[in-house]
Amino acid sequence: MRRTDHPTVGEADSFPFVDDSLAANLPRIRSIGIVDVKFGRNVTVVQPVNLYGCEIGDDTFIGPFVEIQKRATIGKRCRIQSHAFICELVTIGDDCFISHGAMFINDLFTTGGPAGEPELWRSTRLGNHVSVGTNATILPVTICDQVVIGAGAVVIKDIVEPGIYAGNPARLLRRL
Amino acid sequence: MRRTDHPTVGEADSFPFVDDSLAANLPRIRSIGIVDVKFGRNVTVVQPVNLYGCEIGDDTFIGPFVEIQKRATIGKRCRIQSHAFICELVTIGDDCFISHGAMFINDLFTTGGPAGEPELWRSTRLGNHVSVGTNATILPVTICDQVVIGAGAVVIKDIVEPGIYAGNPARLLRRL
Amino acid sequence: MRRTDHPTVGEADSFPFVDDSLAANLPRIRSIGIVDVKFGRNVTVVQPVNLYGCEIGDDTFIGPFVEIQKRATIGKRCRIQSHAFICELVTIGDDCFISHGAMFINDLFTTGGPAGEPELWRSTRLGNHVSVGTNATILPVTICDQVVIGAGAVVIKDIVEPGIYAGNPARLLRRL
Repeated sequence: MRRTDHPTVGEADSFPFVDDSLAANLPRIRSIGIVDVKFGRNVTVVQPVNLYGCEIGDDTFIGPFVEIQKRATIGKRCRIQSHAFICELVTIGDDCFISHGAMFINDLFTTGGPAGEPELWRSTRLGNHVSVGTNATILPVTICDQVVIGAGAVVIKDIVEPGIYAGNPARLLRRL
Repeated sequence: MRRTDHPTVGEADSFPFVDDSLAANLPRIRSIGIVDVKFGRNVTVVQPVNLYGCEIGDDTFIGPFVEIQKRATIGKRCRIQSHAFICELVTIGDDCFISHGAMFINDLFTTGGPAGEPELWRSTRLGNHVSVGTNATILPVTICDQVVIGAGAVVIKDIVEPGIYAGNPARLLRRL
Repeated sequence: MRRTDHPTVGEADSFPFVDDSLAANLPRIRSIGIVDVKFGRNVTVVQPVNLYGCEIGDDTFIGPFVEIQKRATIGKRCRIQSHAFICELVTIGDDCFISHGAMFINDLFTTGGPAGEPELWRSTRLGNHVSVGTNATILPVTICDQVVIGAGAVVIKDIVEPGIYAGNPARLLRRL
Protein backbone atom coordinates (compact mmCIF):
# COMPACT_ATOMS: atom_id res chain seq x y z
CA MET A 1 0.00 0.00 0.00
CA ARG A 2 1.27 3.41 -0.87
CA ARG A 3 0.00 6.87 -1.27
CA THR A 4 -1.63 7.19 -4.63
CA ASP A 5 0.04 9.48 -7.06
CA HIS A 6 -2.14 9.20 -10.10
CA PRO A 7 -3.31 12.55 -11.39
CA THR A 8 -7.05 12.08 -10.86
CA VAL A 9 -6.72 12.18 -7.12
CA GLY A 10 -6.62 15.93 -6.83
CA GLU A 11 -7.30 17.16 -3.36
CA ALA A 12 -7.06 13.81 -1.67
CA ASP A 13 -3.33 14.05 -1.46
CA SER A 14 -2.96 13.17 2.18
CA PHE A 15 -5.96 10.97 2.94
CA PRO A 16 -6.76 8.17 2.52
CA PHE A 17 -4.62 5.67 0.72
CA VAL A 18 -5.20 3.93 -2.55
CA ASP A 19 -3.60 0.64 -3.42
CA ASP A 20 -3.84 0.60 -7.19
CA SER A 21 -1.97 -2.64 -7.73
CA LEU A 22 -5.08 -4.44 -8.96
CA ALA A 23 -6.70 -1.51 -10.68
CA ALA A 24 -6.92 -1.94 -14.42
CA ASN A 25 -9.00 1.21 -14.24
CA LEU A 26 -8.38 3.95 -11.73
CA PRO A 27 -11.42 5.64 -10.30
CA ARG A 28 -12.06 9.34 -10.36
CA ILE A 29 -11.47 10.31 -6.74
CA ARG A 30 -13.13 13.33 -5.21
CA SER A 31 -13.17 14.37 -1.60
CA ILE A 32 -15.70 15.75 0.82
CA GLY A 33 -15.44 19.36 1.83
CA ILE A 34 -17.23 22.51 2.85
CA VAL A 35 -18.11 24.24 -0.39
CA ASP A 36 -20.49 27.08 -1.20
CA VAL A 37 -22.00 27.06 2.28
CA LYS A 38 -23.65 30.16 3.68
CA PHE A 39 -22.95 30.17 7.41
CA GLY A 40 -24.68 32.30 10.02
CA ARG A 41 -22.77 33.58 13.01
CA ASN A 42 -21.19 31.32 15.56
CA VAL A 43 -21.61 28.01 13.76
CA THR A 44 -19.52 25.04 14.90
CA VAL A 45 -18.57 22.21 12.55
CA VAL A 46 -16.77 19.00 13.53
CA GLN A 47 -14.80 17.53 10.64
CA PRO A 48 -15.06 15.32 8.66
CA VAL A 49 -18.28 16.56 7.07
CA ASN A 50 -19.59 17.02 3.56
CA LEU A 51 -21.44 20.31 3.27
CA TYR A 52 -22.16 21.93 -0.07
CA GLY A 53 -24.51 24.57 -1.38
CA CYS A 54 -26.52 24.69 1.84
CA GLU A 55 -27.35 27.37 4.40
CA ILE A 56 -26.67 26.98 8.14
CA GLY A 57 -28.21 29.39 10.65
CA ASP A 58 -26.63 31.23 13.59
CA ASP A 59 -25.38 29.22 16.57
CA THR A 60 -25.98 25.85 14.91
CA PHE A 61 -23.75 22.83 15.59
CA ILE A 62 -22.84 20.26 12.91
CA GLY A 63 -21.33 16.99 14.15
CA PRO A 64 -18.90 14.69 12.35
CA PHE A 65 -19.73 12.24 9.53
CA VAL A 66 -22.59 14.51 8.44
CA GLU A 67 -23.62 15.29 4.88
CA ILE A 68 -25.81 18.27 4.01
CA GLN A 69 -26.61 18.74 0.35
CA LYS A 70 -27.22 21.78 -1.76
CA ARG A 71 -30.53 23.60 -1.46
CA ALA A 72 -30.92 22.43 2.15
CA THR A 73 -31.52 25.09 4.79
CA ILE A 74 -30.92 24.70 8.52
CA GLY A 75 -32.25 27.25 10.99
CA LYS A 76 -30.74 28.87 14.05
CA ARG A 77 -29.68 27.15 17.27
CA CYS A 78 -30.00 23.66 15.74
CA ARG A 79 -27.88 20.60 16.44
CA ILE A 80 -27.18 18.26 13.54
CA GLN A 81 -25.66 15.25 15.23
CA SER A 82 -23.09 12.77 13.93
CA HIS A 83 -23.98 10.54 10.97
CA ALA A 84 -27.03 12.62 10.01
CA PHE A 85 -27.84 13.09 6.34
CA ILE A 86 -29.86 16.04 5.07
CA CYS A 87 -30.69 16.04 1.40
CA GLU A 88 -31.67 18.64 -1.16
CA LEU A 89 -35.03 20.35 -0.69
CA VAL A 90 -35.06 19.96 3.10
CA THR A 91 -35.80 23.07 5.15
CA ILE A 92 -35.33 22.87 8.90
CA GLY A 93 -36.59 25.59 11.25
CA ASP A 94 -34.99 27.06 14.35
CA ASP A 95 -34.15 25.20 17.58
CA CYS A 96 -34.34 21.79 15.93
CA PHE A 97 -32.37 18.72 16.99
CA ILE A 98 -31.51 16.19 14.28
CA SER A 99 -30.11 13.22 16.11
CA HIS A 100 -27.43 10.73 15.16
CA GLY A 101 -28.05 8.78 11.97
CA ALA A 102 -31.31 10.57 11.22
CA MET A 103 -31.82 10.88 7.47
CA PHE A 104 -34.08 12.67 5.02
CA ILE A 105 -35.39 11.70 1.59
CA ASN A 106 -36.50 13.64 -1.47
CA ASP A 107 -37.08 10.86 -3.99
CA LEU A 108 -39.88 8.37 -3.32
CA PHE A 109 -38.91 6.00 -6.15
CA THR A 110 -42.61 6.04 -7.12
CA THR A 111 -41.83 5.04 -10.67
CA GLY A 112 -39.92 2.00 -9.50
CA GLY A 113 -36.52 3.56 -9.09
CA PRO A 114 -34.72 6.88 -8.86
CA ALA A 115 -36.74 9.72 -10.36
CA GLY A 116 -33.85 10.82 -12.49
CA GLU A 117 -35.10 14.38 -12.83
CA PRO A 118 -34.68 16.58 -9.72
CA GLU A 119 -37.96 18.21 -10.77
CA LEU A 120 -39.66 15.05 -9.55
CA TRP A 121 -38.12 15.23 -6.09
CA ARG A 122 -40.30 16.41 -3.25
CA SER A 123 -39.46 18.79 -0.45
CA THR A 124 -39.53 18.48 3.33
CA ARG A 125 -40.19 21.28 5.78
CA LEU A 126 -39.69 21.09 9.55
CA GLY A 127 -41.06 23.82 11.78
CA ASN A 128 -39.33 25.14 14.88
CA HIS A 129 -38.55 23.07 17.97
CA VAL A 130 -38.68 19.77 16.09
CA SER A 131 -36.52 16.94 17.46
CA VAL A 132 -35.81 13.99 15.19
CA GLY A 133 -34.65 10.85 16.98
CA THR A 134 -31.61 8.71 16.37
CA ASN A 135 -31.73 6.58 13.21
CA ALA A 136 -35.10 8.05 12.25
CA THR A 137 -35.98 8.44 8.58
CA ILE A 138 -38.10 11.30 7.26
CA LEU A 139 -39.86 11.00 3.92
CA PRO A 140 -40.84 14.20 2.07
CA VAL A 141 -43.36 15.69 4.51
CA THR A 142 -44.23 18.81 6.43
CA ILE A 143 -43.81 18.70 10.21
CA CYS A 144 -45.30 21.44 12.37
CA ASP A 145 -43.64 23.16 15.33
CA GLN A 146 -43.03 21.38 18.62
CA VAL A 147 -42.80 17.78 17.47
CA VAL A 148 -40.66 14.87 18.65
CA ILE A 149 -39.94 12.01 16.24
CA GLY A 150 -38.88 8.90 18.13
CA ALA A 151 -35.70 6.96 17.58
CA GLY A 152 -35.87 4.61 14.62
CA ALA A 153 -39.19 6.05 13.43
CA VAL A 154 -40.08 6.29 9.76
CA VAL A 155 -42.24 9.33 9.05
CA ILE A 156 -44.31 8.85 5.91
CA LYS A 157 -46.95 11.58 6.15
CA ASP A 158 -47.37 15.15 7.28
CA ILE A 159 -47.52 15.91 10.98
CA VAL A 160 -49.82 18.81 11.78
CA GLU A 161 -50.24 18.49 15.54
CA PRO A 162 -47.54 18.95 18.22
CA GLY A 163 -46.72 15.64 19.86
CA ILE A 164 -44.44 12.65 20.13
CA TYR A 165 -44.53 10.29 17.16
CA ALA A 166 -42.78 6.92 16.86
CA GLY A 167 -42.78 3.60 15.00
CA ASN A 168 -42.56 2.44 11.41
CA PRO A 169 -44.69 4.02 10.08
CA ALA A 170 -44.66 6.76 12.72
CA ARG A 171 -47.86 7.27 14.70
CA LEU A 172 -48.84 9.72 17.43
CA LEU A 173 -47.83 8.45 20.87
CA ARG A 174 -49.01 11.43 22.85
CA ARG A 175 -49.80 15.10 22.40
CA LEU A 176 -47.53 17.84 23.69
CA MET B 1 -3.74 17.50 22.20
CA ARG B 2 -0.94 16.91 19.76
CA ARG B 3 -0.26 14.83 16.75
CA THR B 4 0.55 11.34 17.79
CA ASP B 5 4.06 10.20 17.13
CA HIS B 6 4.06 6.71 18.50
CA PRO B 7 5.22 4.16 15.98
CA THR B 8 2.04 2.10 15.72
CA VAL B 9 0.18 4.85 13.94
CA GLY B 10 1.58 4.10 10.52
CA GLU B 11 -0.30 5.80 7.74
CA ALA B 12 -2.44 7.96 9.96
CA ASP B 13 0.23 10.59 10.15
CA SER B 14 -1.90 13.53 9.28
CA PHE B 15 -5.37 12.60 10.49
CA PRO B 16 -6.82 12.48 13.05
CA PHE B 17 -5.23 13.31 16.32
CA VAL B 18 -4.51 11.13 19.25
CA ASP B 19 -4.16 12.48 22.74
CA ASP B 20 -2.33 9.73 24.50
CA SER B 21 -1.91 11.50 27.81
CA LEU B 22 -4.22 9.05 29.57
CA ALA B 23 -3.29 5.98 27.58
CA ALA B 24 -1.58 3.38 29.69
CA ASN B 25 -1.95 1.22 26.60
CA LEU B 26 -1.77 2.61 23.12
CA PRO B 27 -4.15 1.13 20.57
CA ARG B 28 -3.12 -0.35 17.27
CA ILE B 29 -4.29 2.28 14.81
CA ARG B 30 -5.16 1.42 11.26
CA SER B 31 -6.76 3.63 8.66
CA ILE B 32 -9.41 3.25 6.02
CA GLY B 33 -8.34 3.10 2.41
CA ILE B 34 -8.98 1.78 -1.06
CA VAL B 35 -7.15 -1.52 -1.19
CA ASP B 36 -7.33 -4.45 -3.59
CA VAL B 37 -10.37 -3.04 -5.38
CA LYS B 38 -11.14 -4.00 -8.96
CA PHE B 39 -12.68 -0.95 -10.60
CA GLY B 40 -14.55 -0.87 -13.90
CA ARG B 41 -14.28 2.13 -16.16
CA ASN B 42 -15.43 5.58 -15.16
CA VAL B 43 -16.05 4.93 -11.47
CA THR B 44 -16.31 7.93 -9.13
CA VAL B 45 -15.45 7.69 -5.44
CA VAL B 46 -15.91 10.46 -2.86
CA GLN B 47 -13.47 10.15 0.01
CA PRO B 48 -13.43 9.21 2.83
CA VAL B 49 -14.43 5.63 2.08
CA ASN B 50 -13.27 2.19 3.14
CA LEU B 51 -13.18 -0.15 0.16
CA TYR B 52 -11.22 -3.38 0.19
CA GLY B 53 -11.18 -6.57 -1.81
CA CYS B 54 -14.38 -5.72 -3.66
CA GLU B 55 -15.35 -5.22 -7.28
CA ILE B 56 -17.06 -2.07 -8.59
CA GLY B 57 -18.64 -1.99 -12.06
CA ASP B 58 -18.38 0.60 -14.83
CA ASP B 59 -19.89 4.04 -14.28
CA THR B 60 -20.74 3.40 -10.65
CA PHE B 61 -20.68 6.16 -8.03
CA ILE B 62 -19.56 5.63 -4.42
CA GLY B 63 -20.42 8.39 -1.93
CA PRO B 64 -18.55 9.37 1.22
CA PHE B 65 -18.56 7.54 4.57
CA VAL B 66 -19.16 4.25 2.72
CA GLU B 67 -17.64 0.88 3.57
CA ILE B 68 -17.61 -1.99 1.08
CA GLN B 69 -15.98 -5.19 2.26
CA LYS B 70 -14.07 -7.89 0.49
CA ARG B 71 -15.94 -10.38 -1.66
CA ALA B 72 -18.69 -7.83 -2.35
CA THR B 73 -19.53 -7.12 -5.98
CA ILE B 74 -21.30 -4.02 -7.29
CA GLY B 75 -22.63 -3.89 -10.85
CA LYS B 76 -22.58 -1.18 -13.49
CA ARG B 77 -24.25 2.22 -13.32
CA CYS B 78 -25.02 1.88 -9.60
CA ARG B 79 -25.05 4.61 -6.98
CA ILE B 80 -23.87 3.70 -3.51
CA GLN B 81 -24.87 6.71 -1.44
CA SER B 82 -23.25 8.18 1.65
CA HIS B 83 -23.15 6.16 4.87
CA ALA B 84 -24.04 2.88 3.11
CA PHE B 85 -22.43 -0.33 4.30
CA ILE B 86 -22.04 -3.36 2.04
CA CYS B 87 -20.63 -6.47 3.64
CA GLU B 88 -18.90 -9.58 2.42
CA LEU B 89 -20.95 -11.97 0.29
CA VAL B 90 -23.23 -9.27 -1.13
CA THR B 91 -23.67 -9.17 -4.90
CA ILE B 92 -25.49 -6.21 -6.41
CA GLY B 93 -26.62 -6.15 -10.06
CA ASP B 94 -26.59 -3.33 -12.57
CA ASP B 95 -28.49 -0.02 -12.31
CA CYS B 96 -29.05 -0.38 -8.59
CA PHE B 97 -29.41 2.50 -6.13
CA ILE B 98 -28.26 1.88 -2.55
CA SER B 99 -29.43 4.88 -0.63
CA HIS B 100 -27.92 6.70 2.34
CA GLY B 101 -27.39 4.61 5.45
CA ALA B 102 -28.66 1.42 3.81
CA MET B 103 -26.84 -1.60 5.21
CA PHE B 104 -26.44 -5.29 4.50
CA ILE B 105 -25.89 -8.29 6.78
CA ASN B 106 -24.27 -11.67 6.35
CA ASP B 107 -24.40 -13.06 9.90
CA LEU B 108 -27.79 -13.76 11.43
CA PHE B 109 -26.45 -14.46 14.94
CA THR B 110 -28.63 -17.59 14.89
CA THR B 111 -26.50 -19.27 17.50
CA GLY B 112 -26.92 -16.35 19.87
CA GLY B 113 -24.03 -14.23 18.70
CA PRO B 114 -21.52 -13.77 15.91
CA ALA B 115 -21.09 -16.94 13.87
CA GLY B 116 -17.36 -16.80 14.24
CA GLU B 117 -16.70 -18.82 11.11
CA PRO B 118 -17.23 -17.00 7.80
CA GLU B 119 -18.42 -20.34 6.45
CA LEU B 120 -21.59 -19.76 8.45
CA TRP B 121 -22.28 -16.38 6.90
CA ARG B 122 -24.98 -16.20 4.29
CA SER B 123 -24.97 -14.34 0.99
CA THR B 124 -27.23 -11.68 -0.49
CA ARG B 125 -27.97 -11.17 -4.16
CA LEU B 126 -29.74 -8.18 -5.67
CA GLY B 127 -30.89 -8.29 -9.28
CA ASN B 128 -30.82 -5.33 -11.66
CA HIS B 129 -32.77 -2.10 -11.17
CA VAL B 130 -33.12 -2.62 -7.43
CA SER B 131 -33.42 0.54 -5.31
CA VAL B 132 -32.80 0.24 -1.57
CA GLY B 133 -34.18 3.12 0.48
CA THR B 134 -32.46 5.30 3.03
CA ASN B 135 -31.66 3.62 6.35
CA ALA B 136 -33.02 0.29 5.08
CA THR B 137 -31.48 -2.95 6.33
CA ILE B 138 -31.18 -6.06 4.17
CA LEU B 139 -30.74 -9.46 5.77
CA PRO B 140 -29.18 -12.26 3.69
CA VAL B 141 -31.78 -12.66 0.94
CA THR B 142 -32.26 -12.76 -2.80
CA ILE B 143 -34.08 -9.83 -4.39
CA CYS B 144 -35.28 -10.06 -8.00
CA ASP B 145 -35.01 -7.37 -10.67
CA GLN B 146 -37.08 -4.19 -10.53
CA VAL B 147 -37.71 -3.87 -6.82
CA VAL B 148 -37.93 -0.83 -4.55
CA ILE B 149 -37.21 -1.25 -0.84
CA GLY B 150 -38.69 1.62 1.14
CA ALA B 151 -36.82 3.88 3.50
CA GLY B 152 -36.24 2.36 6.91
CA ALA B 153 -37.46 -1.07 5.79
CA VAL B 154 -35.99 -4.28 7.18
CA VAL B 155 -35.99 -7.05 4.55
CA ILE B 156 -35.97 -10.47 6.18
CA LYS B 157 -36.97 -12.81 3.35
CA ASP B 158 -36.48 -13.27 -0.36
CA ILE B 159 -38.33 -11.00 -2.77
CA VAL B 160 -39.32 -12.76 -5.96
CA GLU B 161 -41.82 -10.36 -7.48
CA PRO B 162 -41.15 -6.82 -8.79
CA GLY B 163 -42.75 -4.25 -6.54
CA ILE B 164 -42.41 -1.72 -3.77
CA TYR B 165 -41.77 -3.19 -0.33
CA ALA B 166 -41.65 -1.33 2.99
CA GLY B 167 -41.94 -1.72 6.76
CA ASN B 168 -40.26 -3.74 9.49
CA PRO B 169 -40.45 -6.51 8.44
CA ALA B 170 -40.80 -5.43 4.81
CA ARG B 171 -44.05 -6.32 3.06
CA LEU B 172 -45.30 -5.74 -0.48
CA LEU B 173 -46.96 -2.34 -0.82
CA ARG B 174 -47.75 -2.56 -4.51
CA ARG B 175 -46.62 -4.38 -7.62
CA LEU B 176 -44.60 -2.71 -10.33
CA MET C 1 -11.64 25.60 -3.78
CA ARG C 2 -8.50 25.90 -1.79
CA ARG C 3 -7.14 24.80 1.52
CA THR C 4 -8.53 27.02 4.17
CA ASP C 5 -6.06 29.14 5.96
CA HIS C 6 -8.24 31.11 8.31
CA PRO C 7 -7.13 30.93 11.90
CA THR C 8 -10.15 29.19 13.40
CA VAL C 9 -9.40 25.97 11.62
CA GLY C 10 -6.81 24.75 14.05
CA GLU C 11 -5.95 21.12 13.65
CA ALA C 12 -7.83 20.54 10.44
CA ASP C 13 -4.93 21.78 8.40
CA SER C 14 -4.85 19.00 5.86
CA PHE C 15 -8.43 17.75 5.70
CA PRO C 16 -10.91 18.52 4.38
CA PHE C 17 -11.22 21.61 2.29
CA VAL C 18 -13.19 24.72 2.93
CA ASP C 19 -14.34 27.01 0.18
CA ASP C 20 -15.01 30.22 2.00
CA SER C 21 -15.88 32.30 -1.02
CA LEU C 22 -19.51 32.62 0.04
CA ALA C 23 -18.91 32.72 3.77
CA ALA C 24 -19.85 36.04 5.27
CA ASN C 25 -19.26 34.23 8.56
CA LEU C 26 -16.66 31.55 8.96
CA PRO C 27 -17.60 28.61 11.15
CA ARG C 28 -15.61 27.41 14.09
CA ILE C 29 -14.06 24.21 12.76
CA ARG C 30 -13.09 21.39 15.06
CA SER C 31 -11.95 17.91 14.12
CA ILE C 32 -12.60 14.42 15.36
CA GLY C 33 -9.87 12.66 17.28
CA ILE C 34 -8.95 10.19 19.97
CA VAL C 35 -8.84 12.23 23.16
CA ASP C 36 -8.80 11.23 26.82
CA VAL C 37 -9.50 7.58 26.03
CA LYS C 38 -8.47 4.85 28.44
CA PHE C 39 -7.49 1.85 26.34
CA GLY C 40 -7.01 -1.69 27.56
CA ARG C 41 -4.39 -3.92 26.02
CA ASN C 42 -4.43 -4.90 22.37
CA VAL C 43 -7.17 -2.60 21.16
CA THR C 44 -7.47 -1.96 17.42
CA VAL C 45 -8.96 1.23 16.01
CA VAL C 46 -9.63 1.96 12.34
CA GLN C 47 -9.54 5.67 11.58
CA PRO C 48 -11.45 7.91 11.09
CA VAL C 49 -13.18 7.70 14.47
CA ASN C 50 -14.28 10.14 17.13
CA LEU C 51 -13.47 8.76 20.58
CA TYR C 52 -13.32 10.97 23.64
CA GLY C 53 -13.46 10.50 27.36
CA CYS C 54 -14.45 6.83 27.09
CA GLU C 55 -12.96 3.53 28.22
CA ILE C 56 -12.25 0.62 25.85
CA GLY C 57 -11.47 -2.85 27.18
CA ASP C 58 -8.74 -5.31 26.23
CA ASP C 59 -8.78 -6.87 22.78
CA THR C 60 -11.66 -4.74 21.55
CA PHE C 61 -11.97 -3.63 17.91
CA ILE C 62 -13.35 -0.24 16.86
CA GLY C 63 -14.25 0.16 13.18
CA PRO C 64 -14.23 3.33 11.08
CA PHE C 65 -16.81 6.14 11.14
CA VAL C 66 -17.55 5.35 14.80
CA GLU C 67 -18.23 7.86 17.56
CA ILE C 68 -17.96 6.94 21.24
CA GLN C 69 -18.68 9.72 23.70
CA LYS C 70 -17.37 10.51 27.12
CA ARG C 71 -18.54 8.46 30.08
CA ALA C 72 -19.17 5.44 27.80
CA THR C 73 -17.50 2.17 28.77
CA ILE C 74 -16.85 -0.77 26.43
CA GLY C 75 -15.82 -4.15 27.80
CA LYS C 76 -13.25 -6.68 26.66
CA ARG C 77 -13.23 -8.60 23.39
CA CYS C 78 -15.97 -6.46 21.86
CA ARG C 79 -16.38 -5.40 18.25
CA ILE C 80 -17.78 -1.95 17.58
CA GLN C 81 -18.47 -2.01 13.87
CA SER C 82 -18.40 0.81 11.34
CA HIS C 83 -20.89 3.67 11.65
CA ALA C 84 -21.88 2.74 15.21
CA PHE C 85 -22.61 5.51 17.69
CA ILE C 86 -22.28 5.02 21.44
CA CYS C 87 -23.36 7.92 23.60
CA GLU C 88 -22.64 9.08 27.12
CA LEU C 89 -23.92 6.88 29.94
CA VAL C 90 -23.73 3.64 27.95
CA THR C 91 -21.94 0.71 29.56
CA ILE C 92 -21.27 -2.36 27.43
CA GLY C 93 -20.08 -5.65 28.92
CA ASP C 94 -17.55 -8.14 27.62
CA ASP C 95 -17.78 -10.12 24.37
CA CYS C 96 -20.39 -7.82 22.87
CA PHE C 97 -20.86 -7.15 19.17
CA ILE C 98 -22.25 -3.74 18.19
CA SER C 99 -22.98 -3.99 14.52
CA HIS C 100 -22.79 -1.41 11.75
CA GLY C 101 -24.94 1.66 12.21
CA ALA C 102 -26.24 0.55 15.61
CA MET C 103 -26.86 3.55 17.84
CA PHE C 104 -27.64 4.33 21.45
CA ILE C 105 -29.68 7.08 23.10
CA ASN C 106 -29.59 8.79 26.46
CA ASP C 107 -32.18 11.55 26.02
CA LEU C 108 -35.79 10.53 25.52
CA PHE C 109 -37.01 14.04 24.67
CA THR C 110 -39.81 13.41 27.18
CA THR C 111 -40.37 17.10 27.70
CA GLY C 112 -40.84 17.67 23.99
CA GLY C 113 -37.23 18.21 23.02
CA PRO C 114 -33.67 17.83 24.23
CA ALA C 115 -33.46 17.57 28.00
CA GLY C 116 -30.85 20.27 28.15
CA GLU C 117 -29.44 19.11 31.46
CA PRO C 118 -27.29 15.94 31.33
CA GLU C 119 -28.73 15.14 34.73
CA LEU C 120 -31.96 14.26 32.94
CA TRP C 121 -30.27 11.79 30.59
CA ARG C 122 -30.74 8.11 31.31
CA SER C 123 -28.18 5.34 31.21
CA THR C 124 -27.97 2.08 29.28
CA ARG C 125 -26.30 -1.10 30.44
CA LEU C 126 -25.58 -4.15 28.29
CA GLY C 127 -24.48 -7.38 29.92
CA ASN C 128 -21.95 -9.79 28.43
CA HIS C 129 -22.38 -11.62 25.14
CA VAL C 130 -24.90 -9.14 23.81
CA SER C 131 -25.04 -8.70 20.02
CA VAL C 132 -26.77 -5.64 18.63
CA GLY C 133 -27.77 -5.92 14.98
CA THR C 134 -27.06 -3.58 12.10
CA ASN C 135 -28.97 -0.28 12.14
CA ALA C 136 -30.58 -1.17 15.47
CA THR C 137 -31.42 1.60 17.93
CA ILE C 138 -31.23 1.15 21.69
CA LEU C 139 -33.14 3.47 24.00
CA PRO C 140 -31.95 3.83 27.63
CA VAL C 141 -32.52 0.29 28.92
CA THR C 142 -30.83 -2.59 30.68
CA ILE C 143 -30.13 -5.71 28.62
CA CYS C 144 -29.11 -8.94 30.34
CA ASP C 145 -26.38 -11.35 29.25
CA GLN C 146 -26.72 -13.49 26.13
CA VAL C 147 -29.09 -11.43 24.06
CA VAL C 148 -29.31 -10.83 20.32
CA ILE C 149 -30.99 -7.66 19.05
CA GLY C 150 -32.05 -8.06 15.43
CA ALA C 151 -31.09 -5.77 12.58
CA GLY C 152 -33.16 -2.62 12.41
CA ALA C 153 -34.77 -3.28 15.80
CA VAL C 154 -35.71 -0.47 18.15
CA VAL C 155 -35.35 -1.54 21.80
CA ILE C 156 -37.59 0.55 24.04
CA LYS C 157 -37.68 -1.45 27.28
CA ASP C 158 -35.46 -3.58 29.47
CA ILE C 159 -34.60 -7.11 28.36
CA VAL C 160 -34.27 -9.50 31.27
CA GLU C 161 -34.32 -12.87 29.54
CA PRO C 162 -31.70 -14.27 27.14
CA GLY C 163 -33.10 -14.50 23.63
CA ILE C 164 -33.38 -13.01 20.17
CA TYR C 165 -35.40 -9.82 19.96
CA ALA C 166 -36.41 -7.94 16.80
CA GLY C 167 -38.85 -5.42 15.36
CA ASN C 168 -39.91 -1.86 16.08
CA PRO C 169 -40.56 -1.94 18.96
CA ALA C 170 -38.40 -5.01 19.65
CA ARG C 171 -40.17 -8.14 20.85
CA LEU C 172 -38.91 -11.59 21.82
CA LEU C 173 -38.59 -13.86 18.77
CA ARG C 174 -37.21 -16.88 20.58
CA ARG C 175 -35.41 -17.78 23.78
CA LEU C 176 -31.75 -18.75 23.82
